[in-house]
Amino acid sequence: MKILIINPNSDELTDACIRQKADAFVQGAYEVSVVHVRSTPKLVSSYRDAAAALPEMMEMVLQGSGYDAFIVACHSDPNLDVLKEITDKPVVGIGEASMKIASMYCNGFAIISPSVKSVPKKRTLAGKYYCSELYKGAEVSAGNEEEKLYLAAKKAVENSHVDGIILGCANYANADKYIERKLGIKVFDGVACALIIASGMVMYNSYKRN
Amino acid sequence: MKILIINPNSDELTDACIRQKADAFVQGAYEVSVVHVRSTPKLVSSYRDAAAALPEMMEMVLQGSGYDAFIVACHSDPNLDVLKEITDKPVVGIGEASMKIASMYCNGFAIISPSVKSVPKKRTLAGKYYCSELYKGAEVSAGNEEEKLYLAAKKAVENSHVDGIILGCANYANADKYIERKLGIKVFDGVACALIIASGMVMYNSYKRN
Amino acid sequence: MKILIINPNSDELTDACIRQKADAFVQGAYEVSVVHVRSTPKLVSSYRDAAAALPEMMEMVLQGSGYDAFIVACHSDPNLDVLKEITDKPVVGIGEASMKIASMYCNGFAIISPSVKSVPKKRTLAGKYYCSELYKGAEVSAGNEEEKLYLAAKKAVENSHVDGIILGCANYANADKYIERKLGIKVFDGVACALIIASGMVMYNSYKRN
Amino acid sequence: MKILIINPNSDELTDACIRQKADAFVQGAYEVSVVHVRSTPKLVSSYRDAAAALPEMMEMVLQGSGYDAFIVACHSDPNLDVLKEITDKPVVGIGEASMKIASMYCNGFAIISPSVKSVPKKRTLAGKYYCSELYKGAEVSAGNEEEKLYLAAKKAVENSHVDGIILGCANYANADKYIERKLGIKVFDGVACALIIASGMVMYNSYKRN
Amino acid sequence: MKILIINPNSDELTDACIRQKADAFVQGAYEVSVVHVRSTPKLVSSYRDAAAALPEMMEMVLQGSGYDAFIVACHSDPNLDVLKEITDKPVVGIGEASMKIASMYCNGFAIISPSVKSVPKKRTLAGKYYCSELYKGAEVSAGNEEEKLYLAAKKAVENSHVDGIILGCANYANADKYIERKLGIKVFDGVACALIIASGMVMYNSYKRN
Amino acid sequence: MKILIINPNSDELTDACIRQKADAFVQGAYEVSVVHVRSTPKLVSSYRDAAAALPEMMEMVLQGSGYDAFIVACHSDPNLDVLKEITDKPVVGIGEASMKIASMYCNGFAIISPSVKSVPKKRTLAGKYYCSELYKGAEVSAGNEEEKLYLAAKKAVENSHVDGIILGCANYANADKYIERKLGIKVFDGVACALIIASGMVMYNSYKRN
Repeated sequence: MKILIINPNSDELTDACIRQKADAFVQGAYEVSVVHVRSTPKLVSSYRDAAAALPEMMEMVLQGSGYDAFIVACHSDPNLDVLKEITDKPVVGIGEASMKIASMYCNGFAIISPSVKSVPKKRTLAGKYYCSELYKGAEVSAGNEEEKLYLAAKKAVENSHVDGIILGCANYANADKYIERKLGIKVFDGVACALIIASGMVMYNSYKRN
Repeated sequence: MKILIINPNSDELTDACIRQKADAFVQGAYEVSVVHVRSTPKLVSSYRDAAAALPEMMEMVLQGSGYDAFIVACHSDPNLDVLKEITDKPVVGIGEASMKIASMYCNGFAIISPSVKSVPKKRTLAGKYYCSELYKGAEVSAGNEEEKLYLAAKKAVENSHVDGIILGCANYANADKYIERKLGIKVFDGVACALIIASGMVMYNSYKRN
Repeated sequence: MKILIINPNSDELTDACIRQKADAFVQGAYEVSVVHVRSTPKLVSSYRDAAAALPEMMEMVLQGSGYDAFIVACHSDPNLDVLKEITDKPVVGIGEASMKIASMYCNGFAIISPSVKSVPKKRTLAGKYYCSELYKGAEVSAGNEEEKLYLAAKKAVENSHVDGIILGCANYANADKYIERKLGIKVFDGVACALIIASGMVMYNSYKRN
Repeated sequence: MKILIINPNSDELTDACIRQKADAFVQGAYEVSVVHVRSTPKLVSSYRDAAAALPEMMEMVLQGSGYDAFIVACHSDPNLDVLKEITDKPVVGIGEASMKIASMYCNGFAIISPSVKSVPKKRTLAGKYYCSELYKGAEVSAGNEEEKLYLAAKKAVENSHVDGIILGCANYANADKYIERKLGIKVFDGVACALIIASGMVMYNSYKRN
Repeated sequence: MKILIINPNSDELTDACIRQKADAFVQGAYEVSVVHVRSTPKLVSSYRDAAAALPEMMEMVLQGSGYDAFIVACHSDPNLDVLKEITDKPVVGIGEASMKIASMYCNGFAIISPSVKSVPKKRTLAGKYYCSELYKGAEVSAGNEEEKLYLAAKKAVENSHVDGIILGCANYANADKYIERKLGIKVFDGVACALIIASGMVMYNSYKRN
Repeated sequence: MKILIINPNSDELTDACIRQKADAFVQGAYEVSVVHVRSTPKLVSSYRDAAAALPEMMEMVLQGSGYDAFIVACHSDPNLDVLKEITDKPVVGIGEASMKIASMYCNGFAIISPSVKSVPKKRTLAGKYYCSELYKGAEVSAGNEEEKLYLAAKKAVENSHVDGIILGCANYANADKYIERKLGIKVFDGVACALIIASGMVMYNSYKRN
């Protein structure tokens, strides 16, 4: 099984971060490649950035005959609907996957987010995934470091009484372990969650086609 | 990885049905055992049946040190909340998993159900999993045979314009392939969906504990 | 008319508290008995505690031929669904009743809760009772005393602009009068609310059977 | 305890129907009077009819010093919000009470309604009372007779898989017993449900003022 | 085209405020008149105030043959439903219009409100207009001055991460421009929003009748 | 004022249909141009079609300095979010506008749709616009002719008890008058509704910038 993680952010550091998480998570059980979009800014944060990424992302899926599934690795899930439509293979967004998995293991969640500007859209995204009741707000982190993310998560718990934290950016992918241990509640990273759904759906599709 | 599928129905035929699906789905990638509850009727369909199953199901989880995850294989997800609470290992219900996965791949779904009596509770279950907007009703099947299930699914599509079908009983576990091919829309079986979530969460927990 | 209040908490002080409220509320209009579960901790706060209480609670209902209705007197409403199913007599939870009555007399409510740990589940409970829009959060009280409960209620009003307060624990049953007078907004205790529904439903059932 | 049932319909036959139900339900436990509004048509069915009833209904409440609670006995609950506001005594609508009680004892309900015209507003009313998920549609009855109401209820069950029926008109108040017995699922009449809430709230208010 | 703005508040200062906004907004494109109700307090804030305004408001609409549309210019939209029903001409509330327009241009909004007392009802109003997910709370302004309203809006943004502000009182009608420029997010005044809907619906009705 | 209607369907007949409606609706009050996208099929019906239209649609808005507002004239509102983001001028979708206006004037609506395939997505679209409670299903029309659309609308009313009809395709733009007269309930065409919002928002923006 080969899964292609499409990083909509044109940032090799984000690639590295995603690759590190995928390797540690997958443990060689299947192959994972990471590729980034070139025509976008380093951090995709608007619908316009998503539009800029669209042709490359569609190309990656349409030309990705060597892959069994695709993951969109930006927490705003840019272009997810169309990518799902143009292929019979599984396509999963890290925003979607993190909320769906979280919805099974907590009574409410907060999202840690990289910028104040992106917070209002998180509510709309939660609504798109039928998680309006579970979503109790976002907290902005002062940086990508584990301790800063932990402090934002801690503040979210104090402010909104959630028992789940979602890491709202691909750059946070490796902080789930640290925060969960220190905070004592469930922490969900979208890269891990999307790998769960994507690899599982590859098996499901393979079963259905046999 | 070893996953225990707990069949709350005291019916060995259901065990066999679940085992057949699990084997065909997993293809040896990990180990799956199936065990049924003894103190329940052959088809669990009430809260009382769920209560009768509770002590055995708790025991199976608490004594299940050889397993990495547990699946509750009755579509009403009896005792799921408490089982999740008493162990740090993943516990997944086939009702929950089927609705969560379906919610990622269709705009609306209908549930095929074994009895008129269980239909009103399906609505409440869909609400519990935040799928009220997606759930467009249930259709009762005249039997467990693939063709009968296909006919019920076809009727559901005609009546409620859904583009997804959920098989609402563990005994239907092997009919997804047949119905999906014949009907041309996505069909979701809870056993497959729960295996996706359970095996993935085992990997996630293992990653977090390293 | 005889109503049995089942206290899922194995605490005689809670019994006394419930009995005091029931006596003051009912004023002899009908008979009320209070009995507690023995196989649980003093304060039921988890699904596991609820599971521990299940056999005794079912027994109380099934053997309760002398009673016309049953009330579950823990605000998390443990085992309510199954108890409703195994008898034709009314069964009412104090969590459910308090939210339903409150929903008729305020535009939004907060719940006063005995522990931080139980707060996330209150959101899920509010969702179960279709009160997600009305539920504006919980406030933890530093103790069972009226003044401490009043302070928690006051804080809830300031933080979330509600015009209703729900007392989220059977041990708070006698504080509604004090807080309502001091705070000037509606305060709802579940024991009173459950007695309203239970006694009324006894009359309704009696009417239907004549 | 004295409860005044305000019939917004200027029809003495409706008065008689309500009185018959109240007498059979209350069995002398408390006093119930029925009075109708004079400035409305025989069957209130529009916001304009409600407006016509407003001055009389306010007067009845403001001048009703001899009564402990008031019930609005038209299933569209005309002027309920303002009546609740102008008195400290309980005011209950039969539409509101029937949906709240039904929401505790079924997984979904249909409303039997006297005219096609009033059906769309039932959806809005269900939404007002947070019962959108429970409300599965209305069925129009060809008349007020028990058998005709039963046939409409039967059709509703077949069409929408509900396990609860709400009688959506004060003129249907005495048909609940007949339909419930024949149909085998719960049937809720608003007059009975409103008496439950109103008499219970009188006790609650009396407790709070002592 | 002639539009009548009905000011339910018996305050000529509010008339002037509304007129100033309407003139600046309409720029002579069509005629707008403002008239206030006489039998209400200066600031309508309760259902009782709304009831007091009802006969005059109905008269204004029924006798308003010279007008093509009517606007209810109090943000609680008193008597809106009945006014819509008694005429074929468009009737628009400033509360309704502001929320509907805001829902198209932001991911979440807060309402600036003149009194703590009116805040809980804003939630119910948002629910009535299907804006529960968008409505993230209200902030009370210390006065009608632009700077005070700006400060309340700023606080709302900081507290609830909204990207839209709704001015929740007719007396705030001229402050949208100032706050929007200073705060940098969308600000919606109900008088402007209602004029958009009302004038547009006049054109639509005129088209349909030709 | 000049409004550009962007027709995402590459069909000149649709242009003509839209132009006819706009002319009849606007009556010369402002200028309206219609332009279609060239790189799409004649009837846009998938996310892939929307993606194909994206570059042209963005170009039309970014290069549209001569226009004061833009309307997306396909009822699935392709690319609406990004177009709203890249300009300070109003952008309105006919799907969005039709549902928002309908939500003010009816208790429930059905959508008339050109193909069975597009129906499930209508539910998702209604959810996006917070109209899930109002949306009671879609009916497929056998053609674009007024009588066929009327028959579909009639069937929708009979099946789902709605009091509003939304025409779910730009090609139906001129049928609202015919159906409304014949059916006797409100009928909403998205082109008219979008012109109401777009022209009104131009006035609002112009006011805010003075």
